[in-house]
Amino acid sequence: MKTISEAKAFGGVQGVYSHESNECACEMTFAVYVPPQAADGPCPVLWYLSGLTCTHANVMDKGEYRRAAAEHGVIIVCPDTSPRGDDVPDDGDNWQFGSGAGFYLDANAEPWRKNYRMYSYISSELPKLVGEHFPADMARQGIFGHSMGGHGALTIALKHPDRFKSCSAFAPIVQPTTADWSSGAFARYLGDNPESWADYDACLLVESGARFPEILIDQGTADGFLEEGLRPWLFEDACKGTEIDLTLRMQEGYDHSYFFISTFMADHIAWHANRL
Amino acid sequence: MKTISEAKAFGGVQGVYSHESNECACEMTFAVYVPPQAADGPCPVLWYLSGLTCTHANVMDKGEYRRAAAEHGVIIVCPDTSPRGDDVPDDGDNWQFGSGAGFYLDANAEPWRKNYRMYSYISSELPKLVGEHFPADMARQGIFGHSMGGHGALTIALKHPDRFKSCSAFAPIVQPTTADWSSGAFARYLGDNPESWADYDACLLVESGARFPEILIDQGTADGFLEEGLRPWLFEDACKGTEIDLTLRMQEGYDHSYFFISTFMADHIAWHANRL
Repeated sequence: MKTISEAKAFGGVQGVYSHESNECACEMTFAVYVPPQAADGPCPVLWYLSGLTCTHANVMDKGEYRRAAAEHGVIIVCPDTSPRGDDVPDDGDNWQFGSGAGFYLDANAEPWRKNYRMYSYISSELPKLVGEHFPADMARQGIFGHSMGGHGALTIALKHPDRFKSCSAFAPIVQPTTADWSSGAFARYLGDNPESWADYDACLLVESGARFPEILIDQGTADGFLEEGLRPWLFEDACKGTEIDLTLRMQEGYDHSYFFISTFMADHIAWHANRL
Repeated sequence: MKTISEAKAFGGVQGVYSHESNECACEMTFAVYVPPQAADGPCPVLWYLSGLTCTHANVMDKGEYRRAAAEHGVIIVCPDTSPRGDDVPDDGDNWQFGSGAGFYLDANAEPWRKNYRMYSYISSELPKLVGEHFPADMARQGIFGHSMGGHGALTIALKHPDRFKSCSAFAPIVQPTTADWSSGAFARYLGDNPESWADYDACLLVESGARFPEILIDQGTADGFLEEGLRPWLFEDACKGTEIDLTLRMQEGYDHSYFFISTFMADHIAWHANRL
């Protein structure tokens, strides 16, 4: 692991690091905030998965998570959203596929299958690295994210209810297999057999019996992607009658931006901290 | 005035606007955050002046001021740091002169004197515009800033102690006439007569009798510009024995970045709110 930068913030350290990823077969960069409480012992870990077009840096710069993380003593890990590099296949300026659009799945179609393994990277490889290099209590992990990263947080939590003690999302893509801005990517990453896509779709996972005890979702009513891309009511329907305790808060007048995310960031970190 | 964007944040509105500036003879862009309390009547105005290389956007994205502004009911105005545009003379990639480096002064040397009038722009033209277009109580104004913007906040407050009720700075350039990264710019903007520069130098203004009742400065001890460019002890010396009540806090381990600024932003906004 290489240290790219470290800076003191809110009494802790905001760092940026990179490493050679086996899963993604390229160098991957990620950000970690370690709160001041880590001086006294391991802290719980909260994973933040970012949305389309983002790197680790967007939420680090604009997400306003450090004050609450320092207050509650939580480590925040912010991975990248896809493999990157000259040796990684991409699709030019397409912001819904390739670089910045890994969709937290393991591709099985050529030429994407070698590098686009964000599911295994986030759920397996990076946790090992974080557990080894940071003062992290890996028995206390939570996960959240925004948009595509909300999709990632929901699906990864639903597949690992024993590992994560908490899950939340800002404006998540709850049914990516049918949304305009994601179904095309699923077809290219996973091949033209929609049944195999269900493993990376929060609604379909719940319908197949996957469970997570409690989930918090905030969604802005002025979000331009609400009706076509996000549709949180589909997840609300899927959870109805199950043991999943879903809190869906429609936030009047908020859009899809970091102005929305940062407004509710402290709420989400407090939610997770109470459960970690 | 043109609205470039508006988004709800922390119950208020973060907007970006532009207008044709007479002082700068070009289109100027600025950001304004209006807190939710403005629905009930005019709010005090706090001016944030940014540092070298910045536009209005850096502190808007990374400064984390909205939570505290919404808590205290303060409007935050974030201007640009220089004139810009195809018709504005510049100096290529020089980050210490020209675009992004207006130094909050009125140039009198050619070819800069036509556009580089940030002192008059910030202290006269933009306040009129803000007073006309926003729910602002212009009888209650404070000013703060970072680095070059800290210099701007100190000098403008010292020249307008009746207008501003509060002043603070993050890592300000306190004596720009003698600092490596600013004295060259002063020579080019103001001509080769250092005596005329004193009007834009916080230390020299205080030595000439300018006063402001109370000033708060935070300075990181790990700031790479501390010894050469910033040197807050010079301002401490200048204020000694005067009626200026200076609080200079050396913050252990903090650097010059927005990680430092955002850490102490809420403190500064509370300081201003108490005096507005």
